Amino acid sequence: MSTATTSLRSRHLLGISELDPGEIDLVMQTSHAMKEVALRPIKKVPTLRGRTVINLFFEPSTRTRMSFELAEKRLSADTLGMTTSGSSVVKGETLWDTARTLEAMSPDMIVMRHAASGAAHHLAKITRGSIINAGDGMHEHPTQALLDAFTITERKGRLAGLTVAIVGDLVHSRVFRSNALLLTRMGATVRACGPATLMPPGLDRLGVQVTTSLDEAVEGADVVMMLRVQYERMQGLYLPSVREYFSLFGLTPARLERAAPDVIVMHPGPMNRGVEIDSEVADGPWSVILDQVANGVAVRMAALYLLAGGDGEEARA
Amino acid sequence: MSTATTSLRSRHLLGISELDPGEIDLVMQTSHAMKEVALRPIKKVPTLRGRTVINLFFEPSTRTRMSFELAEKRLSADTLGMTTSGSSVVKGETLWDTARTLEAMSPDMIVMRHAASGAAHHLAKITRGSIINAGDGMHEHPTQALLDAFTITERKGRLAGLTVAIVGDLVHSRVFRSNALLLTRMGATVRACGPATLMPPGLDRLGVQVTTSLDEAVEGADVVMMLRVQYERMQGLYLPSVREYFSLFGLTPARLERAAPDVIVMHPGPMNRGVEIDSEVADGPWSVILDQVANGVAVRMAALYLLAGGDGEEARA
Amino acid sequence: MSTATTSLRSRHLLGISELDPGEIDLVMQTSHAMKEVALRPIKKVPTLRGRTVINLFFEPSTRTRMSFELAEKRLSADTLGMTTSGSSVVKGETLWDTARTLEAMSPDMIVMRHAASGAAHHLAKITRGSIINAGDGMHEHPTQALLDAFTITERKGRLAGLTVAIVGDLVHSRVFRSNALLLTRMGATVRACGPATLMPPGLDRLGVQVTTSLDEAVEGADVVMMLRVQYERMQGLYLPSVREYFSLFGLTPARLERAAPDVIVMHPGPMNRGVEIDSEVADGPWSVILDQVANGVAVRMAALYLLAGGDGEEARA
Repeated sequence: MSTATTSLRSRHLLGISELDPGEIDLVMQTSHAMKEVALRPIKKVPTLRGRTVINLFFEPSTRTRMSFELAEKRLSADTLGMTTSGSSVVKGETLWDTARTLEAMSPDMIVMRHAASGAAHHLAKITRGSIINAGDGMHEHPTQALLDAFTITERKGRLAGLTVAIVGDLVHSRVFRSNALLLTRMGATVRACGPATLMPPGLDRLGVQVTTSLDEAVEGADVVMMLRVQYERMQGLYLPSVREYFSLFGLTPARLERAAPDVIVMHPGPMNRGVEIDSEVADGPWSVILDQVANGVAVRMAALYLLAGGDGEEARA
Repeated sequence: MSTATTSLRSRHLLGISELDPGEIDLVMQTSHAMKEVALRPIKKVPTLRGRTVINLFFEPSTRTRMSFELAEKRLSADTLGMTTSGSSVVKGETLWDTARTLEAMSPDMIVMRHAASGAAHHLAKITRGSIINAGDGMHEHPTQALLDAFTITERKGRLAGLTVAIVGDLVHSRVFRSNALLLTRMGATVRACGPATLMPPGLDRLGVQVTTSLDEAVEGADVVMMLRVQYERMQGLYLPSVREYFSLFGLTPARLERAAPDVIVMHPGPMNRGVEIDSEVADGPWSVILDQVANGVAVRMAALYLLAGGDGEEARA
Repeated sequence: MSTATTSLRSRHLLGISELDPGEIDLVMQTSHAMKEVALRPIKKVPTLRGRTVINLFFEPSTRTRMSFELAEKRLSADTLGMTTSGSSVVKGETLWDTARTLEAMSPDMIVMRHAASGAAHHLAKITRGSIINAGDGMHEHPTQALLDAFTITERKGRLAGLTVAIVGDLVHSRVFRSNALLLTRMGATVRACGPATLMPPGLDRLGVQVTTSLDEAVEGADVVMMLRVQYERMQGLYLPSVREYFSLFGLTPARLERAAPDVIVMHPGPMNRGVEIDSEVADGPWSVILDQVANGVAVRMAALYLLAGGDGEEARA
């Protein structure tokens, strides 16, 4: 991998599609350094002291919001949170005006999740600070893909040459999109698997292999990544029933037998046990699901650090 | 203006009605000093370190709540927030008991917004700390008027002698009341304009000129301040329809032609585009709406600083 | 009391049932030291700097949540809050998965309130940090009992030998349970009083005296502690009506005449004035209700300090 990249080209983190392999590698390396901070008794570094980060979540979230907030606090930033409940959004103000208003308060960074694809890009056009996309509609969720890549690398030592099966609701999943972009870019083989009704058109353009058979997807895979099924999709149009979904696409220990012997299982959470994943798998020896959560804080610290102008080599020193 | 005033007489900021011109000027001067903090890479001063500020919002709010929280954090205060959702108010406790309970925790300051006029005064009677009124019913919203005055002064160099038109729902607006009090006190001419059904009785006692004609209000004005129309007022009693309201009181570029050539347009937000203000005006060269937001943080820092016993001259030094 | 105890045996504070008298005494002593911090102009000590505390409230709360948050901030901890609204709980994730997810972020402490009895114990089994039970179903609320004991001691100089009447909904009250355990353990006599329909079976095993007569309970009592009546219990099954409840179990000045002359009246809040307590009593000379709130912050600081490995003797030094 390139050792030349020591900083990110953009001051925003909007999507994996805008990162080159050297930059992805830089985030991975910096995350290693940040992970060590969590092992100290005083889990705090002064990197972002006196900087303001606004966490702007237009969709409910626990893990992502808390993970970012924790990362920000460990870097000594001042954090402010806005969720849709209890806010002006109730009063009918547009996203555009809310965003411009917050921007006028000159935060150094805004972390935003929004139901509209492209929302973070839109915001980035008007802001003087940095925008981190924490999920925009069905588009991207770059820090999730970065923490997934970090977790895989931690276990497998590499990304290139691995076979990664991603299974579930592919059409609505920004987690799938960001992971597919990152993993193919880093030389992994990605198998996309799900019901035909939940596959986006043009899936092949992502450079992934496509199948509706879970067995085919899992066969010899080094990594199986299960996506969350959203109940609202279950109503008629897209999916038949929880029982049928589980029988076709639910990951069980039996199903995993076709995978590589040292396969690891991932899930971005929150899990629907008994829908897309069996509890035996979720809590079993294959599962790195809680590692993903732990690594999420380190990877977000790295992203914040690098966007704030931090030097990748210095962080590793 | 008096240069002698270097501190506020009261430890509370309950309303403009309690400030004299020297004090208003002191807040303006101190805000200038605070505005510079936002330009530093480390936007933080240790003024309120170890002091506790509780933000008690009984009405939903984004901009005011975030503006205060940011101001508090830039002064290094410890902040705690309480909004009505997820609180004991759900359990039916009275405001009085909630306030006394929070007071018993000895915060240094409480910033409160409440739907009842006089709520902040009520709280000030029992507290040992400082109360800042962030809006009480239809009564006052003093930091809004102070930030508006600061924004006008920034553009016009003065308040005295200016003509300011304030347009909209005058009867329900604490923003109007606080602004009318401040601007007349500082020597500006205030024209109050709105539908007759939304004019409070005794409007003349505020020392303002009254008209139901937007053209008359705007004629030669240096500043046009639009008030937010609340949809709940639209239902029958007070207002005819959105379309009719806009045709009579909505601010458009054409309407602005009657104003002074260098007129500025203000709005406390959140805006209803196409109701009280046309998007072309909101985003046009006249608009200082985002300056208001940016200045809000500085003015609130100044208010917090002065109430905490800070010295106005020292801040400017 | 033992002077030998200078630290807590467990790293969790799950219930009074797990504390011995020496430990209870240690918390009391440490709380005295912490109470002094609140009197300083800079109400902050660096004890928990760089430590992360997650406040996990699955039930709405103002006073307990704010009291903990304030205690944490006065100890310089980084705090993160999660309430059920705006969280993944909305998405149907289990408590178990939410807890394990947060645990994976390696907080140093988790303060949790949950509607299920035993929830905090459950969480303690998987966490590497410390758990503080801020109320679990009808089971325990240990910091409330500790702050009540601290408040009584402040006024009476001791717990042993006192007569404490606890009145109200005994079956649903974790405040009653924790107080009964603590007070009997420290040598006080506890009289439990309430409607027969709101008495738990096996009440005698707690070592308390039981009566359905308020007069009998109050007779000669040094302390009368009123419990909050929950309106949802009022619907038919358990309680007749607000009026009848007040006439039988509401504490009035007349009723208090039977108590010891220097009786004090307590309430954990939020109060239902006119239901379980008359306003004259709540605001009268007997009331130490606001002292309870003020002491709550100090006692929680003490608990956090001791669980973090703080030394009781050092705190007093």
